[in-house]
Amino acid sequence: MAEAAVDVTRTLAGYVVEAKASDVPQPVRTEAVRSLLNWAGCAIGGSGHETVDRALAAVTPFAGKPEASLFGRSERIDVLNAALLNGIASHVFDFDDTHLKTIIHPAGPVASALLALAEIRPMTGAELLHAFILGVEVECRIGNAVYPAHYDIGWHITGTAGVFGAAAAAGKVLGLHPQQMTWALGIAGTQSSGFREMFGTMCKSFHPGRAAQNGLLSAFLAQQNFTSSDRALEAPRGFAHVMSTARDFDEITGELGQHFEISLNTYKPFACGIVIHPSIDGAVQLRNENNLKADQIAKVELRVAPLVLELTGKKTPRTGLEGKFSVFHSVAVALIDGAAGEREYSDAKVADPTVVALRDKVEAVVDRGLRDDEAYVTVFLKDGRRLERHVPHAIGLADAADLARGAARG
Amino acid sequence: MAEAAVDVTRTLAGYVVEAKASDVPQPVRTEAVRSLLNWAGCAIGGSGHETVDRALAAVTPFAGKPEASLFGRSERIDVLNAALLNGIASHVFDFDDTHLKTIIHPAGPVASALLALAEIRPMTGAELLHAFILGVEVECRIGNAVYPAHYDIGWHITGTAGVFGAAAAAGKVLGLHPQQMTWALGIAGTQSSGFREMFGTMCKSFHPGRAAQNGLLSAFLAQQNFTSSDRALEAPRGFAHVMSTARDFDEITGELGQHFEISLNTYKPFACGIVIHPSIDGAVQLRNENNLKADQIAKVELRVAPLVLELTGKKTPRTGLEGKFSVFHSVAVALIDGAAGEREYSDAKVADPTVVALRDKVEAVVDRGLRDDEAYVTVFLKDGRRLERHVPHAIGLADAADLARGAARG
Repeated sequence: MAEAAVDVTRTLAGYVVEAKASDVPQPVRTEAVRSLLNWAGCAIGGSGHETVDRALAAVTPFAGKPEASLFGRSERIDVLNAALLNGIASHVFDFDDTHLKTIIHPAGPVASALLALAEIRPMTGAELLHAFILGVEVECRIGNAVYPAHYDIGWHITGTAGVFGAAAAAGKVLGLHPQQMTWALGIAGTQSSGFREMFGTMCKSFHPGRAAQNGLLSAFLAQQNFTSSDRALEAPRGFAHVMSTARDFDEITGELGQHFEISLNTYKPFACGIVIHPSIDGAVQLRNENNLKADQIAKVELRVAPLVLELTGKKTPRTGLEGKFSVFHSVAVALIDGAAGEREYSDAKVADPTVVALRDKVEAVVDRGLRDDEAYVTVFLKDGRRLERHVPHAIGLADAADLARGAARG
Repeated sequence: MAEAAVDVTRTLAGYVVEAKASDVPQPVRTEAVRSLLNWAGCAIGGSGHETVDRALAAVTPFAGKPEASLFGRSERIDVLNAALLNGIASHVFDFDDTHLKTIIHPAGPVASALLALAEIRPMTGAELLHAFILGVEVECRIGNAVYPAHYDIGWHITGTAGVFGAAAAAGKVLGLHPQQMTWALGIAGTQSSGFREMFGTMCKSFHPGRAAQNGLLSAFLAQQNFTSSDRALEAPRGFAHVMSTARDFDEITGELGQHFEISLNTYKPFACGIVIHPSIDGAVQLRNENNLKADQIAKVELRVAPLVLELTGKKTPRTGLEGKFSVFHSVAVALIDGAAGEREYSDAKVADPTVVALRDKVEAVVDRGLRDDEAYVTVFLKDGRRLERHVPHAIGLADAADLARGAARG
């Protein structure tokens, strides 16, 4: 583990500047296309959410030339605000992609910045795809270097690492030279922010939106030779020391170009944090196989990984956004609707008396021996039957089983 | 020391909402006027710096309606970008005011946000002054709660605490209700950022600029009911736990309205970090009293507080901005020019052969028994004479001597 590496920021910046699209293997490009498609679906799906409405209302009086589109909406706005608003929309349902090693949602910050930039800086699809791959590489490598210590402190890593990815991707398209790219990463780093305390509020999706906007601004500033430190990542008063209690710089500079983090991206079947997925999966399976109805159920017992209750332990969510951080609500809707999509996380659904009644019958205990994508779901019926399901890996993550094992911290 | 206080954010927000201008004692208002005047001088003085030029060039293509002035410049720009650019200008010379207990430069984030807002939201002078006092109160109280641990980690506290002050001041003028003010502080907090690693680069003044802009945006978002946590300051995954290793919430909620932090503000005679001031002061005194010329000097020895070399230990600064973080450059120009104003921190002055030659003759040793505003300066002349000066308190800080003692960490 390299704690005192030198020239980490310069090395990473140099790689992004020099990297060639032709050196990216075809399967990596295919995964990048999947990630972009998934991102676009999330951004369009979330575009009508009141979180986007309110942010748009706040920034519109000060917005610049309406050069950029808002996915799924009719308004147009300036490029920097488009990055913010599309970034919010793409994350507001918590339905976007996940880099399981770090729980980063990689596409949001990077794609939101790039698509906005593309409105004024024409680029080929291949050029956009390559910049996207590089941006995801930068944010996930920085995430790998500080996860899990950085996340455990309370940082929302999609925002804190995402801002670097957005800066790198935008800087690549703008043709920044190595010194400018180093500055861009520094300007991005010194804006890195976002608390996990905000989960369940509108600020959660604000984080990737702001990461996209701030990273894009960083690239524009660096293009004007706005200076920053050359050692923003590795310096004693820089990112990895200030914002984490542990770090491994080899994760940032090792084997650059030899593998691609986007290959490890995964896509969600449920519109909530990934740690609840195995519980939902098990609940849906038991419901469908036994044709369960809510009024048959006496009690539900969950056995889950520690992170599940830390992240999603809200017993009485008040809003749809809070519902995403309640394993109790999520299992209740999974048993009632057989699904956990955006409809199951509306304000109305969270307040639905049938859902509330069943939610109050769900109990959860922590089992430190379980992985984050593993759970046991037991349903006790009023007729005395007991139905149990062990979900070793949540649906949608089967291919990522080895990864998930790596990500478990029990 | 209150580590587990409840309702810290709500209490602070409630105070800002309820506070009345008529309850502020006249001496506090007088100090606020001095602070504003000092801020305006700094903002106008710094407005032509290339740091402002480059930031303006980067944001102009995306800027909105030119409703707001840039102090000292002919361009006009949208309100949010005016907050950014005036904030940068006011700090770029490191000449702005200092709250010695925390080394926060209080006016930058708060005044830059308020004056920009005043362009579209007419307010009386009394209303502006009161909001300014409250904004400074919020940022300095939050700073008091986490200083010095927060600063020692590597956070640039003017940015990290300043964003709360800007949000509170703008929110006061916008008439936010208590829930909205709580959200405004939360939205501000989750954008809190800025590394000390950036000292000596353009990003240093970017921090208060961005704090002003982000705090102002937080107030606009909260006005639209954009939600955040109600416990951004005190929650286990919120500001005081995530961004500091120690905290005292009584500093935030104790005796609200009974004293005012702006009463403790101080103003700089030299355009650099306050910890170099006693060394400069001593050098200027010895020069003037002995009519010293650079070519008479064989060697200069400094005995300084630990923070001096930690913050300003650059042996070979390359730019004017880096010169501000070199006690060696600062003492050299003090001996040559008898001053350390913005002219002494130009790129040309840092490269001046006479300055470089004398700078290389300056040595510094740390004395853990010294306060941050105390130094011993000894000049060895080629004719064998030895001139020594003990500066117990740097010029301009005499009234703040007791405070400075409180701020010393030896």
